[in-house]
Amino acid sequence: MTTLAECEARDAADPLARIRQRFALPDGVIYLDGNSLGALPRAAASHLARVVEAEWGEGLVRSWNTAGWYDAPRRVGAKIARLIGAHDDEVLVADSTSVNLYKLLRAVLSADSARHTILTEPGNFPTDLHIAQGIAAVDPRVRVQLAPREAIADAAGPGTIVLLTHVHYRTCDKYDMAAVNRAVKARGGIVVWDLSHSVGAVALDLAADGAELAVGCGYKYLSGGPGAPAFLYVARHLQARLHSPVTGWLGHAAPFAFADDYVAAPGIDRFQSGTPPILGLAALECGVDLMLETDMALLAAKGQALCDLFIEQVDARCPGLELVTPRDRRVRGSHVSYRHPHAYAVMQALIARGVIGDFREPAVIRFGFAPLYTGFADAWRAVEALAQVLATQAWDDPRFAERARVT
Amino acid sequence: MTTLAECEARDAADPLARIRQRFALPDGVIYLDGNSLGALPRAAASHLARVVEAEWGEGLVRSWNTAGWYDAPRRVGAKIARLIGAHDDEVLVADSTSVNLYKLLRAVLSADSARHTILTEPGNFPTDLHIAQGIAAVDPRVRVQLAPREAIADAAGPGTIVLLTHVHYRTCDKYDMAAVNRAVKARGGIVVWDLSHSVGAVALDLAADGAELAVGCGYKYLSGGPGAPAFLYVARHLQARLHSPVTGWLGHAAPFAFADDYVAAPGIDRFQSGTPPILGLAALECGVDLMLETDMALLAAKGQALCDLFIEQVDARCPGLELVTPRDRRVRGSHVSYRHPHAYAVMQALIARGVIGDFREPAVIRFGFAPLYTGFADAWRAVEALAQVLATQAWDDPRFAERARVT
Repeated sequence: MTTLAECEARDAADPLARIRQRFALPDGVIYLDGNSLGALPRAAASHLARVVEAEWGEGLVRSWNTAGWYDAPRRVGAKIARLIGAHDDEVLVADSTSVNLYKLLRAVLSADSARHTILTEPGNFPTDLHIAQGIAAVDPRVRVQLAPREAIADAAGPGTIVLLTHVHYRTCDKYDMAAVNRAVKARGGIVVWDLSHSVGAVALDLAADGAELAVGCGYKYLSGGPGAPAFLYVARHLQARLHSPVTGWLGHAAPFAFADDYVAAPGIDRFQSGTPPILGLAALECGVDLMLETDMALLAAKGQALCDLFIEQVDARCPGLELVTPRDRRVRGSHVSYRHPHAYAVMQALIARGVIGDFREPAVIRFGFAPLYTGFADAWRAVEALAQVLATQAWDDPRFAERARVT
Repeated sequence: MTTLAECEARDAADPLARIRQRFALPDGVIYLDGNSLGALPRAAASHLARVVEAEWGEGLVRSWNTAGWYDAPRRVGAKIARLIGAHDDEVLVADSTSVNLYKLLRAVLSADSARHTILTEPGNFPTDLHIAQGIAAVDPRVRVQLAPREAIADAAGPGTIVLLTHVHYRTCDKYDMAAVNRAVKARGGIVVWDLSHSVGAVALDLAADGAELAVGCGYKYLSGGPGAPAFLYVARHLQARLHSPVTGWLGHAAPFAFADDYVAAPGIDRFQSGTPPILGLAALECGVDLMLETDMALLAAKGQALCDLFIEQVDARCPGLELVTPRDRRVRGSHVSYRHPHAYAVMQALIARGVIGDFREPAVIRFGFAPLYTGFADAWRAVEALAQVLATQAWDDPRFAERARVT
């Protein structure tokens, strides 16, 4: 059994530990929810103040040109590209994950009239399922097909768009991206990946793994701030064939010609729609810049080691929890979930003790390990608090039993 | 002819003048481009710092509940509702103007299979035209029909969705909203209004004027910051019948049930898609709050008076400019545009003198009068600078002749 002293020694020897100081983490809190909302990079506070006061306040409309605002969706996209193994010109920051999913799915459906089935798994993150259902609800040509994850690739065919979340938001199951891409492509299908719970947490190499389309979230491991803009990835060889359904003016080949007729921009720019959210982009760029100071392989390995440690400790100290996350790190992302009949109350009691994870329906507590700012001692102490909560049966405490309106 | 002293006296007597101090306007600049990017409310800088450092940094994921983040799209929407004559539950802040246009147009098309024609005017703001064209490009049932503004209402029929920008971005022509709604409705059509150049600048009363659907921009007169989120308006009686095509998880009736099946939220919430952009919403709320401290009728009257003064002065002092904005304030918004063969160089020379307006294709210079922070002396001095630029024929100066990459 790993001791606290051993965890502290690992933290002291961790080459990533210096980056923890670059985040503003509150005292007395062990934050294990960076997979829901990433912590605040200290640089984001000062950078946003500069963007607001100097660029917006002083520069005013001139800052679109002089402060790099127009370029921000491409510039930050190119930085994210380096985290996911894509080319600079394959990633764009835009809109939300939901809107980007919609744009890519509709783009593929419209480009190829023989595609008509969106194939995904039950229990996928709701927005992935819902966006697909919303498309099928109004397009009689389209249907949504569900298959369990182990049967997904076999269920694909030439009419299929496979829509998968690479790392599952609840269980943390991770698909073998290369194998799925290969199998689906061999059957004539195409895959759209949702990288929301992967990017910044696990090693990704989209080009090497044959990924063609993806979206991802800016506010989780990338620490882009609440409601940060999302990103989308379109492999170069598809960019000329695919068109965004949301043909806003900034996706035009010459937005400032103010022409009546829409002409799609070449390349990934056609997936821009409206004016980019500069404040959100500014915060996101700070988070991405911090991540680029490290090595993604190092980061992913630390995330796995944190999860391993957490699971080992819970095995030993927390009876009554059912692990729903794979023990095998090769098929796992960077969070760990457990089922407990009083999961909501357990998590509320933990939060009251300063350990912040989250609750997910049905009856799951979830702990995220953002390797940039989470230490081994954090994981160890979190388990200690969890063991205490379970031992005291905190779910009998009415303070914790009531469901919040949202969680 | 109004003198500078008279303008200064009007500013001194202006009940809105006290609000100018609440904006951070740079020294030595006369800012006449608040219709492109609104100036920075001083409160936005301090509020954003608090949102970033206390809510994001300290509160972390808890702030979704404790800091009012989840409610922000509805809360700020309800505030905007008061500016446009809508009910609190009819306005939602979400996405960009482009995405919101897409959502409303597709919602109407899907709700009523007899509607198939999007009718709009040539020269409308590009994103309005382009979004409509993008829909028609992939839906063989839909076509885009163009008609000049004076013929729009007559061209409408039961199969029509009329898409109009209430105040034209270039000419500043303003539609008679009540008359158009009445005429189009009498022919069986429905109108979607783009309020981007109206909201915060002209008096609006959507309910009284029979408006049913609208979108609008957050970063112009509302001073919501660069790329601020936009808003959409759906009249109560249509909310149950219309469905967003972008069925993201936050438009679900119970987002945190994490259910596989999409069920649209009742009311306007169904037009939410992804996680709301909290930083952008925070800045926008400051701009809207400032505007709510005044009276919209007072504000609109001052905007008109500023435009009248500007036109009077230019008439007298600036030969060679062709007014493209109506002289009649009843059919005009709050900006003034002129055609000049060397429009781009003229505007660059003006900006070099500290008077910031903007250039719009083809050959138009545009001056916006945001009544919250623009004074009569500003307008007077801007014309003086413009007269000097025209007298010195600045377009022969190579410093000003070259086109910037974007303007």
